[in-house]
Amino acid sequence: MQITSEDFSIEQAAAITATLLERVRRERPPVHVLTSPVAMPFSANVLLAVGAEPSMTSRPEVVTEFVATSRALVVNLGMLDAERETAIASAVPAAIAQGRPWLLDPVKVEQAGTRRRFALDLLRQRPAVLRANHAEIACLAGAGQEPGALARAFGTVVMATGMVDQVTDGTRCFRIGMGSPLMQRITAMGCALSALTGGFLAVANDNFEAAVAAILAFDVAGEIAAGEAKGPGSFQTGFLDALYRLSRDDLESRAKPR
Amino acid sequence: MQITSEDFSIEQAAAITATLLERVRRERPPVHVLTSPVAMPFSANVLLAVGAEPSMTSRPEVVTEFVATSRALVVNLGMLDAERETAIASAVPAAIAQGRPWLLDPVKVEQAGTRRRFALDLLRQRPAVLRANHAEIACLAGAGQEPGALARAFGTVVMATGMVDQVTDGTRCFRIGMGSPLMQRITAMGCALSALTGGFLAVANDNFEAAVAAILAFDVAGEIAAGEAKGPGSFQTGFLDALYRLSRDDLESRAKPR
Amino acid sequence: MQITSEDFSIEQAAAITATLLERVRRERPPVHVLTSPVAMPFSANVLLAVGAEPSMTSRPEVVTEFVATSRALVVNLGMLDAERETAIASAVPAAIAQGRPWLLDPVKVEQAGTRRRFALDLLRQRPAVLRANHAEIACLAGAGQEPGALARAFGTVVMATGMVDQVTDGTRCFRIGMGSPLMQRITAMGCALSALTGGFLAVANDNFEAAVAAILAFDVAGEIAAGEAKGPGSFQTGFLDALYRLSRDDLESRAKPR
Repeated sequence: MQITSEDFSIEQAAAITATLLERVRRERPPVHVLTSPVAMPFSANVLLAVGAEPSMTSRPEVVTEFVATSRALVVNLGMLDAERETAIASAVPAAIAQGRPWLLDPVKVEQAGTRRRFALDLLRQRPAVLRANHAEIACLAGAGQEPGALARAFGTVVMATGMVDQVTDGTRCFRIGMGSPLMQRITAMGCALSALTGGFLAVANDNFEAAVAAILAFDVAGEIAAGEAKGPGSFQTGFLDALYRLSRDDLESRAKPR
Repeated sequence: MQITSEDFSIEQAAAITATLLERVRRERPPVHVLTSPVAMPFSANVLLAVGAEPSMTSRPEVVTEFVATSRALVVNLGMLDAERETAIASAVPAAIAQGRPWLLDPVKVEQAGTRRRFALDLLRQRPAVLRANHAEIACLAGAGQEPGALARAFGTVVMATGMVDQVTDGTRCFRIGMGSPLMQRITAMGCALSALTGGFLAVANDNFEAAVAAILAFDVAGEIAAGEAKGPGSFQTGFLDALYRLSRDDLESRAKPR
Repeated sequence: MQITSEDFSIEQAAAITATLLERVRRERPPVHVLTSPVAMPFSANVLLAVGAEPSMTSRPEVVTEFVATSRALVVNLGMLDAERETAIASAVPAAIAQGRPWLLDPVKVEQAGTRRRFALDLLRQRPAVLRANHAEIACLAGAGQEPGALARAFGTVVMATGMVDQVTDGTRCFRIGMGSPLMQRITAMGCALSALTGGFLAVANDNFEAAVAAILAFDVAGEIAAGEAKGPGSFQTGFLDALYRLSRDDLESRAKPR
């Protein structure tokens, strides 16, 4: 686990993560997740593994009732269908009106023009966090726009994930080497990170710290699971176990300066 | 595993469960399950682990054809969308007309007013079993109405699940201490219990006995899996293995009087 | 693992499979899969385990954009809803127009008259592969029509799966004894085979060879997983691990003449 940041020492990042993780486990925050069916079971299980309480309905008539009792909202555009698009269009303003943090995950936004336009409309509503891979960020950013500039333009925290994960709010920046290549061999792994970040946003006072904590917990659990896995099946099982058991000691001992 | 009942000895409950489980394994009953996408894979795998044959379409135009060839129907309101609501509205009368037992699982009914009204409409059609947690039952029951009174009012068997699980038809009653807290850390675990109960309803002559057998098999498998699990990932894997291998001896040796 | 073929030696089948598997791992082909929500996570994970890149949206407005960037299309009729039916109706002609191979999996086609008519319409558009169990094939074939005759009638490769799996293009034929009875205890296992076949079709020059390679890789991985499994939970985990690690040596040593 290699980490670099001009704004945190490694010890500080591990300590923030451990503190927020304990808060999720104690407070068990409800998190509403609007996501694709392929991502649902694993995203829900990742949230439950750390103690958060997911709900997932995307029915437009009831989604604002669920947002009202949730402490964070996760908006995932994977397999976006008409019903979820309608639900998102009312869930996001409801979250904003109630001061709830919300995260945008613009899955495969580079693959369809209509999805890109919808994602840009959402980005203009200033999510607490934008979590995306490099291809998706390139599709949403202006020409040559770095994650930091994108974060400043939309007043959001950008989590850019890939071989190296980067978290930035435009002034602060945190980078971490990816936990394991096996993470690329499980479907909806990025969606699960977005869901987990929703759990941390629900209990944090600082969206940047929530995003740092989510990616650090995720990657440390991934590294633990990869150390015992024989392939993607046992990796997925071990990843949920590792998240559930993740300790301050795991975080401190695995997080190493680059 | 702690059990109390005025109507069964522990030995009788274990014997009924073993007998019904053998019948499911031998007869491989088709069970139609109308449920949420987050619950689908695990609910289907739980039914398959005991030998039942799940089908899951919620397309209104074909659902009655599937109900016609099934031996039980499971109606789950989690993430209820318009299509499934329409499908349920024709599937339930079809099941009743053909004398098939059906189960109602009113997931998160306390979270949305429209879902509560729909659940009450269904309850008036007298499901064989109502399977719900305590918050959901409180939402559907009258003020201060106990599960037994609810069961009598709607001519149904109530399975109230939580730290202690209770099964009652209004005259008979069975209580069992929860298998493992890890059961709370897997998404759609309650939905999977409802699906499994559908499998037992398909082969039983007595709906109360089917519900007792389902909860006892479920909790014993959960206790076995928890004994070997390192967290919710390995718990879920071990739970399916334990259900698949569950023996009369497991049931008798684990079921202990309170 | 028992194999019989008049057209391949066992060694040839294992060699073809190993070669195509290496190609999937190296080329990482995108495969678009239109399937049921119960099948999505496992089908996606099976493709990822061998290195292919699944996408799954069934939104009619964008599906042709996804097909355009994919190298194969998988059309699964399980839980067929109106939106997916519309998406299929435009995705299949798009795949044909671009010369992409596509596979038809007519899940439970014998259960609903409308699904049968839709499947026959699709079959007339000559999929590269029809993958189905014996009941589904009997429903689509004429009276007494063997898989080979069905293959010739529609210019397709037929994969008929069951206790014995058969692959035929009407002239060539390959048979293989099923890997493990545990395969029947995991939901959407047949759907996952169809998805995997899409991955092999994406890189093969010969659709018959792609189908043979998919079924051989699938059954060998199943046999490896069954050897270590305690039930369907650990089987599913081990199956993904085995697919991920599957080697030329595994294929050659497990494939035995009948």
